[in-house]
Amino acid sequence: MRAVDVIERKRDGAELRREEIEFFVRGYAAGEIPPYQAAAFAMAVFFRGMTPGEIVALTEAMMHTGEVLDLSDLPGPKVDKHSTGGVGDKTSLVLAPLAAACGVYVPMISGRGLGHTGGTLDKLESIPGFNVRLALPEFRRVLRECGLGLIGQTREIAPADRMLYALRDVTATVSSMPLISASIMSKKMAEGIDALVLDVKCGDGAFLPQRERARALATTMVGIGRGMGKRVAALITDMEQPLGRTVGNALEVVECVETLKGRGPADLESLSVELAAWMVHLGGAAAGLDAARARVREALASGAGLERFRRVVELQGGDPRVCDDPASVLPRAAETVVVRAERDGRVARLAARAVGDAAMLLGAGRETVDSAIDAGVGLVFHKKVGDPVAMNEPIVTVHLGKGSRREAALARLAEAVVVAPEAPPRGPLVLEILS
Amino acid sequence: MRAVDVIERKRDGAELRREEIEFFVRGYAAGEIPPYQAAAFAMAVFFRGMTPGEIVALTEAMMHTGEVLDLSDLPGPKVDKHSTGGVGDKTSLVLAPLAAACGVYVPMISGRGLGHTGGTLDKLESIPGFNVRLALPEFRRVLRECGLGLIGQTREIAPADRMLYALRDVTATVSSMPLISASIMSKKMAEGIDALVLDVKCGDGAFLPQRERARALATTMVGIGRGMGKRVAALITDMEQPLGRTVGNALEVVECVETLKGRGPADLESLSVELAAWMVHLGGAAAGLDAARARVREALASGAGLERFRRVVELQGGDPRVCDDPASVLPRAAETVVVRAERDGRVARLAARAVGDAAMLLGAGRETVDSAIDAGVGLVFHKKVGDPVAMNEPIVTVHLGKGSRREAALARLAEAVVVAPEAPPRGPLVLEILS
Repeated sequence: MRAVDVIERKRDGAELRREEIEFFVRGYAAGEIPPYQAAAFAMAVFFRGMTPGEIVALTEAMMHTGEVLDLSDLPGPKVDKHSTGGVGDKTSLVLAPLAAACGVYVPMISGRGLGHTGGTLDKLESIPGFNVRLALPEFRRVLRECGLGLIGQTREIAPADRMLYALRDVTATVSSMPLISASIMSKKMAEGIDALVLDVKCGDGAFLPQRERARALATTMVGIGRGMGKRVAALITDMEQPLGRTVGNALEVVECVETLKGRGPADLESLSVELAAWMVHLGGAAAGLDAARARVREALASGAGLERFRRVVELQGGDPRVCDDPASVLPRAAETVVVRAERDGRVARLAARAVGDAAMLLGAGRETVDSAIDAGVGLVFHKKVGDPVAMNEPIVTVHLGKGSRREAALARLAEAVVVAPEAPPRGPLVLEILS
Repeated sequence: MRAVDVIERKRDGAELRREEIEFFVRGYAAGEIPPYQAAAFAMAVFFRGMTPGEIVALTEAMMHTGEVLDLSDLPGPKVDKHSTGGVGDKTSLVLAPLAAACGVYVPMISGRGLGHTGGTLDKLESIPGFNVRLALPEFRRVLRECGLGLIGQTREIAPADRMLYALRDVTATVSSMPLISASIMSKKMAEGIDALVLDVKCGDGAFLPQRERARALATTMVGIGRGMGKRVAALITDMEQPLGRTVGNALEVVECVETLKGRGPADLESLSVELAAWMVHLGGAAAGLDAARARVREALASGAGLERFRRVVELQGGDPRVCDDPASVLPRAAETVVVRAERDGRVARLAARAVGDAAMLLGAGRETVDSAIDAGVGLVFHKKVGDPVAMNEPIVTVHLGKGSRREAALARLAEAVVVAPEAPPRGPLVLEILS
């Protein structure tokens, strides 16, 4: 078999055989197929697409270039959640402990933020001492002990995906549905899970703002999961405005702790509960979705979720006082600025993408993968879309740090916030469910 | 400007600006844009094509990564011919001296054979001492002295094309019309010529067998030449059977010398004269095409063409006795085998591609760019398509060498030769002219 022939067949629209895909992916991961052939292949896939069978083969091939966790020794279902990324999207820190409290193991391998979107690892690392770089045996121990573990992608997981992603980034082949889907799923499926809940964001702050594209991605990923014999559901959820009231790493951790105490904002609580319920449901840890919802709400109300969070923080080396008095433990910004309404009316828009950009400019996010971040900076929203607001009333408090690009951040934020006589009608948070 | 943005714009079907194309080609040639980005770009061009303006910009950008000859000090028109490659296609050795004898300077930079097609350089190198690796100043001296020079592509000419061609070969992006055209034209236009005659082969033994594809290539190349302000014509010519009676390097040189003596086969003579006439015509060295044809025929009849050939052989270090007694000078095969007709009838087919493959298997051509060749081996056809033949009458004499893959070559040759009760009607050699 020759790489050039595989490229040519894909270029000409043929359906590749599983062996061809395995040959190509393995060869690339092993350094036997050079990046330029992989780049030509990726561009051919961009134009020709892939059949569901090809996408499953690609996902499995990428997954098998690295370690695939075998968690069969854990006595219960293993389920994870993946979000395509948003602004203020912090549900992982809430739902993982809740699901674990309901008898589901959550082996969560997450990523960092880039551009306007945040990342779970960055939020966790704002907790002093919290170690997201556990080796796999240690990860396994934490998981066994408290039902969840929260780490970053290790070098052992799907190395072909890491290589291909870096290549796609510089060859204009990121936005290929089969490549996006296979990239996400190859990493998630390497976690050794039985089921997966996908939170596919849609709207202004999402990676794929358009509903149709989000649906296509959701459909493709659900198909991959099924093709690999796993239970998978996808929730398409709204990302027009930030989720919850905070954007910025330590600020979001505070909000998650508050939510686990039953005092969080409605949207964050309801989405976290819904996603956790789907995890419990797909994991078979409750008799149907409604029963799963009830169990998750119980875990929230009883404080069982918070206790799981405290335990995982402790086991991963973090300061557990973050659950009691977060303000005393977490980094804080040096300075705050309050942005106020310039008129009476209603908040008509908090454009998620511009909010995310503003947070990045403050130092909460990364412009490039190498950017340093400041855990303390960010935004706290006192109002959300639809809320009435009086002139001079605070809308956002901006938490600034030494590295913040103050002027640029405030300018971008000003673009994001719109107060008008009328707000658009409030839509549902969960737009669609594919299961 | 960023390479990834240029790739993305091409991917999305935009027309690239000249500056973008120059940025990309220069960056690639300088090693600043890595091969994987060039590969993704080439694949995007494969799918999206290029406008005539983009193709001209690409050709010029590639040409300007290297030296562009300035031959303005030579007192006459500078014209070259380029063939897309065929089997037994040896017109260069005949037409270049003929055109030079008619007052046109022919600065010919040629290539080597690959696969089933032959190459001018390989034929020339079968002449003992002939040096095709002249440095450019020496090339210029030869050209001034005898009106023609025959060398190989030097490292100074269009390095971006050499890099891109090697990359396309392994990324399934060879068969892109804009890339093929720009590749050919960037090298030819670097010769500092005023006009160019293209011999675009069509049929079984051609790079692009289908008439439509050949026409598209011809049209694109003529467009490039015009876009660069040059006079360009393309002749689409038949390559169903080998041109002339010989295939193999030394054998073809003998045939060329015979042709320059007025004793060559009709097809080779007529195509060489026609192409040379177009060169003389486009060069403005005769009052119209008919006058050009008359001048070329006169140069042939008078022996002026042969004298030019003798002179260039001498000036480039070769043994000029090749013009008097080629058999005594040129390498010869150790052994010959005669293939005879197995029935009475007419030669219905001498399939050019299979003939070319057979010649390659004998050692006359290269399977890969690194293959060694044997100048003495090859094929001599005693019959051409349409000729009557009696059972046991010789059709081909096979000239074998030590490295010949005898069985494979004879088997492939047997596939090529068809004797039948009837032969197909004889078509014209020049199928179409674009000027």
